[in-house]
Amino acid sequence: MSPGVLNEADAVAGRPAQKNAPSARDLVEAEKEKHDVVLKTFRLLISDLCQQFKGGHPGGAIGMAAIGVALWKYVMRYAPQNPTFFNRDRFILSNGHTCIFQYAFLHLTGYKNMTFDQLKSYHSERTDALCPGHPEIEHEGVEVTTGPLGQGIANAVGLAMASKHLGATFNRPGFDVVSNHTWCMIGDACLQEGVGLEAISLAGHFKLNNLTVIYDNNQITCDGSVDMTNTENINEKMKACGWNVIDIEDGCYDIAGIVDALEQSKKSSDKPTFINVRTVIGIGSKVAGTAVAHGAAFGAEDVAAQKLAYGFNPDEHFIIGQVTRDFFAGLPARGDGYVQKWEELVGRYEEAHPDLAARFRKRMKGELTGWEEFIPKSFPEKPTASRASSGLVMNPIAKELDSFMVGTADLSPSVNMIWPGKVDFQHPDLKTSCGINGNYGGRYIHYGVREHVMCAISNGLAAFSPGTIVPVTSSFFMFYLYAAPAVRMGALMRLQVIHHATHDSIGMGEDGPTHQPIELAALYRAMPNLLYIRPGDSEETAGAWTAALSARETPTIVSTSRHALPQLQGTRRDGVLRGAYVLQENEAATLTLIGVGAELSHAVGVAKKLKETKGIEARVVSFPCQRLFEAQPLAYRRDTLRRHKMPAVVLEPYAPNGWERYADAAACVKTFGHSLPGTAAYKYFGFDVDALVTKVLGYLDQIKSDELLRREFVEL
Amino acid sequence: MSPGVLNEADAVAGRPAQKNAPSARDLVEAEKEKHDVVLKTFRLLISDLCQQFKGGHPGGAIGMAAIGVALWKYVMRYAPQNPTFFNRDRFILSNGHTCIFQYAFLHLTGYKNMTFDQLKSYHSERTDALCPGHPEIEHEGVEVTTGPLGQGIANAVGLAMASKHLGATFNRPGFDVVSNHTWCMIGDACLQEGVGLEAISLAGHFKLNNLTVIYDNNQITCDGSVDMTNTENINEKMKACGWNVIDIEDGCYDIAGIVDALEQSKKSSDKPTFINVRTVIGIGSKVAGTAVAHGAAFGAEDVAAQKLAYGFNPDEHFIIGQVTRDFFAGLPARGDGYVQKWEELVGRYEEAHPDLAARFRKRMKGELTGWEEFIPKSFPEKPTASRASSGLVMNPIAKELDSFMVGTADLSPSVNMIWPGKVDFQHPDLKTSCGINGNYGGRYIHYGVREHVMCAISNGLAAFSPGTIVPVTSSFFMFYLYAAPAVRMGALMRLQVIHHATHDSIGMGEDGPTHQPIELAALYRAMPNLLYIRPGDSEETAGAWTAALSARETPTIVSTSRHALPQLQGTRRDGVLRGAYVLQENEAATLTLIGVGAELSHAVGVAKKLKETKGIEARVVSFPCQRLFEAQPLAYRRDTLRRHKMPAVVLEPYAPNGWERYADAAACVKTFGHSLPGTAAYKYFGFDVDALVTKVLGYLDQIKSDELLRREFVEL
Repeated sequence: MSPGVLNEADAVAGRPAQKNAPSARDLVEAEKEKHDVVLKTFRLLISDLCQQFKGGHPGGAIGMAAIGVALWKYVMRYAPQNPTFFNRDRFILSNGHTCIFQYAFLHLTGYKNMTFDQLKSYHSERTDALCPGHPEIEHEGVEVTTGPLGQGIANAVGLAMASKHLGATFNRPGFDVVSNHTWCMIGDACLQEGVGLEAISLAGHFKLNNLTVIYDNNQITCDGSVDMTNTENINEKMKACGWNVIDIEDGCYDIAGIVDALEQSKKSSDKPTFINVRTVIGIGSKVAGTAVAHGAAFGAEDVAAQKLAYGFNPDEHFIIGQVTRDFFAGLPARGDGYVQKWEELVGRYEEAHPDLAARFRKRMKGELTGWEEFIPKSFPEKPTASRASSGLVMNPIAKELDSFMVGTADLSPSVNMIWPGKVDFQHPDLKTSCGINGNYGGRYIHYGVREHVMCAISNGLAAFSPGTIVPVTSSFFMFYLYAAPAVRMGALMRLQVIHHATHDSIGMGEDGPTHQPIELAALYRAMPNLLYIRPGDSEETAGAWTAALSARETPTIVSTSRHALPQLQGTRRDGVLRGAYVLQENEAATLTLIGVGAELSHAVGVAKKLKETKGIEARVVSFPCQRLFEAQPLAYRRDTLRRHKMPAVVLEPYAPNGWERYADAAACVKTFGHSLPGTAAYKYFGFDVDALVTKVLGYLDQIKSDELLRREFVEL
Repeated sequence: MSPGVLNEADAVAGRPAQKNAPSARDLVEAEKEKHDVVLKTFRLLISDLCQQFKGGHPGGAIGMAAIGVALWKYVMRYAPQNPTFFNRDRFILSNGHTCIFQYAFLHLTGYKNMTFDQLKSYHSERTDALCPGHPEIEHEGVEVTTGPLGQGIANAVGLAMASKHLGATFNRPGFDVVSNHTWCMIGDACLQEGVGLEAISLAGHFKLNNLTVIYDNNQITCDGSVDMTNTENINEKMKACGWNVIDIEDGCYDIAGIVDALEQSKKSSDKPTFINVRTVIGIGSKVAGTAVAHGAAFGAEDVAAQKLAYGFNPDEHFIIGQVTRDFFAGLPARGDGYVQKWEELVGRYEEAHPDLAARFRKRMKGELTGWEEFIPKSFPEKPTASRASSGLVMNPIAKELDSFMVGTADLSPSVNMIWPGKVDFQHPDLKTSCGINGNYGGRYIHYGVREHVMCAISNGLAAFSPGTIVPVTSSFFMFYLYAAPAVRMGALMRLQVIHHATHDSIGMGEDGPTHQPIELAALYRAMPNLLYIRPGDSEETAGAWTAALSARETPTIVSTSRHALPQLQGTRRDGVLRGAYVLQENEAATLTLIGVGAELSHAVGVAKKLKETKGIEARVVSFPCQRLFEAQPLAYRRDTLRRHKMPAVVLEPYAPNGWERYADAAACVKTFGHSLPGTAAYKYFGFDVDALVTKVLGYLDQIKSDELLRREFVEL
């Protein structure tokens, strides 16, 4: 046994190394004569699984076989019969298209749900298959849904940060209750996609020595060899980003070398590790080493030839022989041992640190309670930007409840998410020029100017264990377009991640059309399982955050103004929870005005002026969230909108797409914005109250003269 | 004069160096005693310009003053009185928030439109201001609109690629008619944003020695010092990415050193150059070197103190003294000289190479003619994936018309955009493992797995000169979410960039919910100045490309299917140009079915089955593009939809948001997708014809029993 190498069960239980326990390398030596048949079996199984429905991605899975054996058999700490074991190592397949690689190992190592029948469902028409075309978080043994390239490695950085943070918060001498490692498999693409590069930069900065990225360096992508598009010196680049680099030359067969590298990476003192493993895509097939091996089955003839070459019977399919079954047979029991040791550790921890352990249990359960009491019952009456109202609502909660990790893409002064006494998440040794430092126990995260990875890392923080960490991100709303692929993945994974998106209308002003989010709400209102909420004042902001905090399996975008908004009479936080509500009822009304978010006060102003100047009676509906409104009963929706009684006009300086469901006409913006101070921008686009009144009056005239228009949506 | 340094006018005219012409460095030496007052004047001008309206971004502009003098006075080749001079150097301010830096130099160097009055419009309420909060392409001297960080450096890579490509295409010995250099100013953020990192990687790969990136290394962002979020070794990282690196230690004052570095960068044989210039943000102000200097005016007191310290009168504002005026006075004439020399060169080129010169003139004018004749008049009758139809339409055009540069984010085998005999855009010395090579004259671009920078670089290619290059990009539709910020910038800049987005519905199948674009169309249908077109068969695909090719100031997404679509009776390319058209009229109809793109045939099938099984008469409208339809006269729109006569049901397996304008009900998908083979996915979501018929019948029953529903949008 190498000095310093921990016995696995001891390490997972947070105890110092014992002498005489076998190291991972010892275990490799003991079983190495079986590797040849195990690798051949695995590779043929992949070929068969792709061939049955003539589709899938066999090449990468076959190329990574030895890496998989090193991980699942020798190095990773996990419990197949207890897949959600809290202190398990996390494995992320960032090159998610090679999912059959993971599915096959989940089957071989004894995950109960991954039966042989299920394994064979890959690319089938089974609607209950556990083998979708990319790994999905809903299934045992899968930590995050991957597929869109670069997301997985960013999630892995988040998972490693979560371990660091929880360890710093809860571990005590002799009690490393959170001590897991994060393993991330990547292909060439994750080193090309911007979000992956952002993640790499931050992981080095945070000195995440509990993260190992394993690069399946087969130098092949769909179009051909990687040197068509990437000729950088990747090892030097990773070193410049603050990573350890280890090379493996024979990644297709050198299980012992890979195990050594993986074990070495766990001993890194203050850097994440990048293991550059040279493999051959589709090794053993006719198309080995070429792009053809990437995304298509090999064909029956080639699969048969592979079997012959490996000494297998070409007429047999899906063969898993006894040697291979035996090779993996002990893993469920080993996993049970890890769980048992860790539970014993937590038991002793509860005796030694009862209060801390109670908090730890609560966090492990994902409970999030008590936040309601910190939400202000009332707010100052002065005009307040809703970005500031967000701070009034959320900062006391973030201060008191340690479930929250709040971050920003370099807009701390703008987004108002800093609470008094906040501590930054940083490596404790970091000493910055500006003197703002932190430690791993900190819960405020400076992500740099990296919106996309901010949201992708937040998905990883949230995916560590359901509800244990509730990440909050913040930036200008417009830059959630940069982050949209990650916001989408959070919605798809049903993760509670809250995004505070400020500067959300043309009212943000001088920064101009590049920063004015005309069309972006249309994306987020259409995105499944996401709440996009625009509160109109502080009271409604309380409602928006209440909705976000209550949505345990849904991400939310709280969309706020840069500029001060008046505090309105009659706004209701519980109204926000219903998506829309009647702000000003009026039984004499002949018109409904729908106000939204930063422009809600404009609707109120228009109603007042219509009455004062023209005697036209209007009611006002506040409509902060379409999705919440859609969840209301039909009767509530009809009573709120009363569309069969009178026309409704929505006022929002965005593209109107989607408002047609709730309104008959819109004062809206269909071009890009314009660089002007906020008030002048409103005026320029006809969103000051006088111009809006003129537009509404024009519409009322129009529908008198053309009755067909009453059934058509009109842009004002 | 240093050996090898070209006389500026000669270099710009493509002639070898002459002896005895003064080098840039000679010029620096001759005028260096004026630098102190010029720098002070410039810095105070910035302070005053931000102070007048108490806003803006002074710090970076002040910090970069010496860089600006080096560029505009000594190194860059441009013509203030001829801002669109074809062979001008391109300057991109990727840290666009420091725009007042550029505006001030445009004024000082004699751009006509940038009068002193206009310069003072920064952050004013003037609606005709040329000084918006970020640089905008519409204005003289601005090459691309910047602001969203990381976009500008990617545009710069595209501009440098355009020069390389046009040079390789049109230059002949002694006639370097395209020989300009691209200069890109960046701040810390462009080295953090993923799209910037993708751009850096590709620029190194392509060995763009005509690109210089100047890093305003002030180590400050909004949140504080950069070392809070980025501690990588940036110089080593750039070297690993294939760049030259030059350090400048005293970037605030060392104009001579900066000039030397800039000139050296122009002599690079086969690498882009990164000049790491240490500056102090807001130097001379009270808040110099801190984040406070970034995005707020300094305050009247501080501005006065700066003036006193510099020996200026604190009571005078916007002072540009004679020394400074004189310092820049010769630049318009110098620019005119560049233009004249180049025009002479082109004149001689026309004599020596008349045919080539005629092509060159046509390309310079941005003419795009003759493509219509290459579009097939008819198509094979067999079922064809519309991604393949796109190839049938576009590949002959791309082959014959050299205006097109067609690229893909590593999906060549999937997107069908390769024409016979295509040559790749690559450095000519590149020798790849797979044997696919190219040269700078090539017009097919492998971008690697980098969707975002593919689109951002394409913006740069298109921005080189209006219409000279028409870029085409390609990927799966879902991954245009990664690219969305760049697609948006193309629309905002009014650039003709065509995006071929394949695999555009749940019909793409097994790849599952991460790849099935449920909500993405909602974004692009709402985005201003963009056409999102879903053609339903090959004939409609011809229409979609015709629309895209005709839209000279608008980007288009041609959105196509992975799976084979039947060729339908009655589809019309000219119908696509109107956005929607009646595919099957039926005077007896009681229902309109709206079919879209890959599911148009489903609508046809439903109409047929409704008639056969229930005797219900339906008409069918094909609706490939909402924006084109909105541009039609009201009468056409009413005749097409006939909504006042009968209900309309749209069939599209996307989020329905926005269809409410055209339909009364939708068979749609409001959850994320599901990993199943295409046909099975349609069935799973109720999009096979039988299930759709049931839904439509159910809707017809519903509106009979609840008359209010007839006025409400119903999801089926």
